[in-house]
Amino acid sequence: MAILERCDTGAVAHLRMNAPERLNALSDEMLAELQAQIDALRADTSVRAVVISGAGKAFCAGHDLKQMTRGRQAEDGGKAYFADLFDRCASVMTGLTRLPQPVIAQVHGIATAAGCQMVASCDMAVAAEGTRFGVNGVNIGLFCSTPMVALTRNIPRKKAFEMLTTGQFIEADEAETLGLVNRVVPAEALEAEARALAEQVAEKLGTAVRIGKQAFYAQAEMGLDAAYAYTGQVMVENMLDRDTTEGISAFLDKRPASWRQ
Amino acid sequence: MAILERCDTGAVAHLRMNAPERLNALSDEMLAELQAQIDALRADTSVRAVVISGAGKAFCAGHDLKQMTRGRQAEDGGKAYFADLFDRCASVMTGLTRLPQPVIAQVHGIATAAGCQMVASCDMAVAAEGTRFGVNGVNIGLFCSTPMVALTRNIPRKKAFEMLTTGQFIEADEAETLGLVNRVVPAEALEAEARALAEQVAEKLGTAVRIGKQAFYAQAEMGLDAAYAYTGQVMVENMLDRDTTEGISAFLDKRPASWRQ
Amino acid sequence: MAILERCDTGAVAHLRMNAPERLNALSDEMLAELQAQIDALRADTSVRAVVISGAGKAFCAGHDLKQMTRGRQAEDGGKAYFADLFDRCASVMTGLTRLPQPVIAQVHGIATAAGCQMVASCDMAVAAEGTRFGVNGVNIGLFCSTPMVALTRNIPRKKAFEMLTTGQFIEADEAETLGLVNRVVPAEALEAEARALAEQVAEKLGTAVRIGKQAFYAQAEMGLDAAYAYTGQVMVENMLDRDTTEGISAFLDKRPASWRQ
Repeated sequence: MAILERCDTGAVAHLRMNAPERLNALSDEMLAELQAQIDALRADTSVRAVVISGAGKAFCAGHDLKQMTRGRQAEDGGKAYFADLFDRCASVMTGLTRLPQPVIAQVHGIATAAGCQMVASCDMAVAAEGTRFGVNGVNIGLFCSTPMVALTRNIPRKKAFEMLTTGQFIEADEAETLGLVNRVVPAEALEAEARALAEQVAEKLGTAVRIGKQAFYAQAEMGLDAAYAYTGQVMVENMLDRDTTEGISAFLDKRPASWRQ
Repeated sequence: MAILERCDTGAVAHLRMNAPERLNALSDEMLAELQAQIDALRADTSVRAVVISGAGKAFCAGHDLKQMTRGRQAEDGGKAYFADLFDRCASVMTGLTRLPQPVIAQVHGIATAAGCQMVASCDMAVAAEGTRFGVNGVNIGLFCSTPMVALTRNIPRKKAFEMLTTGQFIEADEAETLGLVNRVVPAEALEAEARALAEQVAEKLGTAVRIGKQAFYAQAEMGLDAAYAYTGQVMVENMLDRDTTEGISAFLDKRPASWRQ
Repeated sequence: MAILERCDTGAVAHLRMNAPERLNALSDEMLAELQAQIDALRADTSVRAVVISGAGKAFCAGHDLKQMTRGRQAEDGGKAYFADLFDRCASVMTGLTRLPQPVIAQVHGIATAAGCQMVASCDMAVAAEGTRFGVNGVNIGLFCSTPMVALTRNIPRKKAFEMLTTGQFIEADEAETLGLVNRVVPAEALEAEARALAEQVAEKLGTAVRIGKQAFYAQAEMGLDAAYAYTGQVMVENMLDRDTTEGISAFLDKRPASWRQ
């Protein structure tokens, strides 16, 4: 049984982390499989949206602490291994943000530490009622510094600080209020809801979504003038796309668009 | 009938977009009139606050797609025209942000695409119950990349991404919760409420508001130390203003201030 | 009676501004005492969390306007004094943000202008029911430009603009919704609640919290890649801490951690 299952339905790729006995910990193997799928998806224009979920009781409980502890046996006490590990983890997290396709976290049970970071790193998230979110590494002396990068780009500052320094969990409803997830649904509706959202996005013009997602995160790091100069060019490129031309014409003619894609 | 009406009452200038048959689309003509008024207002110290509204059923439905489509007939397929159009549109949007006077969007019906961008670009917004907001260009294959610049500086990231990639509208109440508008009022109270807010701001010391609004957006793009170094100088300048001296003295003396302005 | 009282209980330092007859105004003397305590706390590893409160009816009503007005009698009309004053005030505000220990504002009555800035500058805040928050300098002609730096890094843009230009107060519940405070409790529970939160944080591994708080604000000013490169190194440093090694081992062994600290 693969540690990361991929199941495509139509234009939606579904990645399911499958190490339920370890709460889908982000072990070296899991990170490698996630990176491999991200690399494959990046070039796959037949996929228009991605859903990520976890098998078993939890979405993801973060790093694999047993494996990390074994890494301490190296001569340098694990320093090189840890540096490489956090590099690989950041590559997966930013890889989700930079995939051309929108990525939706389908979250249940718990999402803690790097698992919470993954939710924050996805473009959108749907959570089951009862899901709990935490960046609780501080409880064992390991502050969630890398998860914080994604978390603080999702929720207000004082709430993020509280989660990080108290280690306390928040419930799904609060996660929605704060902006960490887009919506909360009954557990039995979770998969269908995440799929419906993915399909809704997958039906849009792929080139437009791709260009837009890339611009979304790029302009967020720019000042106002630079952001407009950049997105203005993106709009021109989008306008000149043949399918966009058809999309606008069809709208003006009050008929369905006929896209090549 | 002018495509953009201006009606001043006291120190409040009211701009009303007046192309109701086209849902106040931001045509070349509308953008030119908006830019002309922004340029005029910038130098007009008698105006202390600005309200922008739309005539007819909607606040504004974004760009004029028919006009844009006609632009495609140029030899370059419209490339130069589109580049110029998005430049002019960005100039209007940042022009609102950089007007010395606070600008309040008085919103009803729908505010979509660049119309939603205009709401986000105003300093404050009051919406009628039932108003719907969307950045729905993705539905016709044109991702709202420029509207996104303003939108993402108003509302949390995941909600913005959802609006942009699903094209779905949000209701006025959600717009308020997310931070896109300051308050929602019954339709019949909309104009009075927007005016009251404008008048409330217009009663303040104009130089203080002007200096403050400019600093508001400038410091937002700075790191913490640079922001304090800059706003510290702004405070000194503000303190040395003769009317501010009077305002503080009057407060300490428990009497009304007598401002020259 | 000291203008700033410090009372330590266990690993929690409690600073109490004590000029109730002036609503704990940030006079030259109060700023000097705050700076002195910040400097002392910075080096004091026995302190793991800090609480700041105000004696009397209010948390803090901002700058001392009488003292500022006296400053106008200098030959330069107060220019040099004001520049120095806002420098010293910014040093206190950023000093709170940069203290290695988490700082919790315990807020009651009113927190206005630089008093509201202080709440925003603390890492977390607990407010009593009925507390009111405002950046109301605009009412006397002095726009709250420096308080705005902290406020806009806590709450959404349009709400901040409204507070700054209308001078209107917000109630404690709205302050919580907007992200300016973490929680609101009955007045009689305020001190206990702030202390409980401080103790909760003080029980964590001090080195982890220290490293994490510093990284929290540093990464917030970085782009995504730089933030991950930086926090990745922070995680490595944290992992190599002897107490963190013990914390993780204890967790895996399902026993309490035995930290040296």
